[in-house]
Amino acid sequence: MTAIKYELIHTCKQSGARLGKLYTPHGVIETPIFMPVGTQATVKTLSPEELVAMNTQIILSNTYHLWLQPGDEIIKASGGLHKFMNWKQPILTDSGGFQVFSLSKLRKITEEGVHFRHHKSGAKLFLSPEKAIAIQNNLGSDIMMSFDECIELPAEYNYVKKSVERTLRWAERGLRAHKYPDKQALFGIVQGGTNADLRKFSATELVKLNFPGYSIGGLSVGEPKEIMYQTLEATIPYLPVDKPRYLMGVGSADALIEGSIRGIDMFDCVLPTRIARHGTAMTSSGRLVIRNKQYESDFTKLDYECECYTCKNYTRAYLRHLIKAEETFGQRLISYHNVYFLLKLMENVRQAIKDNRLLDYKDEFFDKYGFNNPNNVRKF
Amino acid sequence: MTAIKYELIHTCKQSGARLGKLYTPHGVIETPIFMPVGTQATVKTLSPEELVAMNTQIILSNTYHLWLQPGDEIIKASGGLHKFMNWKQPILTDSGGFQVFSLSKLRKITEEGVHFRHHKSGAKLFLSPEKAIAIQNNLGSDIMMSFDECIELPAEYNYVKKSVERTLRWAERGLRAHKYPDKQALFGIVQGGTNADLRKFSATELVKLNFPGYSIGGLSVGEPKEIMYQTLEATIPYLPVDKPRYLMGVGSADALIEGSIRGIDMFDCVLPTRIARHGTAMTSSGRLVIRNKQYESDFTKLDYECECYTCKNYTRAYLRHLIKAEETFGQRLISYHNVYFLLKLMENVRQAIKDNRLLDYKDEFFDKYGFNNPNNVRKF
Repeated sequence: MTAIKYELIHTCKQSGARLGKLYTPHGVIETPIFMPVGTQATVKTLSPEELVAMNTQIILSNTYHLWLQPGDEIIKASGGLHKFMNWKQPILTDSGGFQVFSLSKLRKITEEGVHFRHHKSGAKLFLSPEKAIAIQNNLGSDIMMSFDECIELPAEYNYVKKSVERTLRWAERGLRAHKYPDKQALFGIVQGGTNADLRKFSATELVKLNFPGYSIGGLSVGEPKEIMYQTLEATIPYLPVDKPRYLMGVGSADALIEGSIRGIDMFDCVLPTRIARHGTAMTSSGRLVIRNKQYESDFTKLDYECECYTCKNYTRAYLRHLIKAEETFGQRLISYHNVYFLLKLMENVRQAIKDNRLLDYKDEFFDKYGFNNPNNVRKF
Repeated sequence: MTAIKYELIHTCKQSGARLGKLYTPHGVIETPIFMPVGTQATVKTLSPEELVAMNTQIILSNTYHLWLQPGDEIIKASGGLHKFMNWKQPILTDSGGFQVFSLSKLRKITEEGVHFRHHKSGAKLFLSPEKAIAIQNNLGSDIMMSFDECIELPAEYNYVKKSVERTLRWAERGLRAHKYPDKQALFGIVQGGTNADLRKFSATELVKLNFPGYSIGGLSVGEPKEIMYQTLEATIPYLPVDKPRYLMGVGSADALIEGSIRGIDMFDCVLPTRIARHGTAMTSSGRLVIRNKQYESDFTKLDYECECYTCKNYTRAYLRHLIKAEETFGQRLISYHNVYFLLKLMENVRQAIKDNRLLDYKDEFFDKYGFNNPNNVRKF
């Protein structure tokens, strides 16, 4: 028995995108879905109630950060991550692999695992497939990730190949180490850089291990978006239709739509909350930098199409004031809006799939957002 | 016709404290009351809805800060401060006087007003009684303050006397400059340092000007609390019983109770939100520094007696994690608790007045909080 079950409800006749439901121990998720990121057991500036009010169905939290602070043993002792952070709906955790490679400078990769230094204190640390699983077992997330190597792009074919093979062996070790497969679903992670053959190899071999879901990692790390989309197209045909597919670390509006069109079911990204803290809002007509002088006496709402709490109650002038005055309530209001914006976008994507018109919806959205205007690069 | 009306409902037979109602253009306030401070048009980290949920009846905002950022003209153009910040209940604004003297180093006081430098940019600025009123007229607060000189203590008798006389002349000029006395109530501010004679003189002369309410300024600026209480006792008998009395800048639990006993109706202070941002909580058994190691695996609530949102949903271990991880949600949760704590305290004070037992309540509260324990100085 597995912890989750994916149900394919409808395939968009126009685009091939999938509408589905994912049944998890903490509730049902409608897919394709965007998952807000709560790195340190909190989606920055927002409360669980606010996330629920804006129809968040699942959040992501980071194994690496929670392992180091406050420590997975403390979270386990508190009754698990859901209870610790007062979040009653599903949680997905990553494996720590990405952070080991993105945050830590000094690292040594062996077959056993990765030796590295703490990204702040410099303390010696070690993560292995078994350790990453043990931490996630302590956290009690609904969906867990296998420990993988995230290589930097571009990379040599031979290195990528060796890395993919090692990540496959790590995935198998993770499966064996997993203590609660009936309560927590462990996903395998497809790697392979931007090489179609290696992606196919990685996907095909992972599927033999029969994971309850598959992630696509190692993308959105600086490569052009067209290359990312080509890589998705070279990967997804090798993943089973009856399992969910998760594109890791992707959260720009265009990529959410393009990913859905290519058959992705799950996305996550810190983008909406990160840019919000610097005062940038996602709106239906593109990104809006609230610090700009032009909003000083602009008493309209952030996004004229939006009905979120922020847009219903506050003006651009007020938000600009809060951000300039370094008031965290400003970061909170724009974070609320940005997360709402992406959740609403995915709601529209699901409706468009249902109506067999996701390509049309994409065109409409891109036109308004500015993606179809080559002079509008700042909005990307 | 004045903008506000004070109704004395009951005087505590045991303590002499006053239970009252203050009718303002934006609603009725029960007194004695604690007013959370929203310096820059936001009570730091909290939403208006949260303030309402914890039974906030009135907030304070700072004229000096809003004048400089975003500017009172912008707030006026937005429809006034209530609309600008989405706060529908009463607002009290100070006059900027305290900030001119506490934040700005280079200043020159003349009969006309005060020349000083911006506390960050160093730009030349000037505030006068007329200007302070004009700004507050633009903000549209329910209760405004006269522009006053806040002297540092200790100070020479002769200087304090000259300052009190000038502040009286400034109060009169403010009254004349006030454009909307039927919509905004302007309070006079009693000054006079810790000298009983000068306090009496200041109060007596101010009362002749017939303000709709009186503030007591220049206290809680470093003098011993006993001296503050003596000064209150030397002032309040000279204020009319049919007008509200506001003790400026006082918000420690003990001083709220002691002030109420001496006939104060209104209090404000940044204390609950300021210490919260550093991780210190006010609890019924004294202050609690959440960073302390002892709370690492403490899965109980912040204050065992408290029923606030934070205490109902989160543990000390989680709050400690958030504060140590520098997550603003931790500051928000403890700010919520601390403001709730003081509002609840004042609710209890009002009930104790009604029951003619405020002195008993004080003893009970002080015993638990640790004020009556001489070894417990850290809790003060």
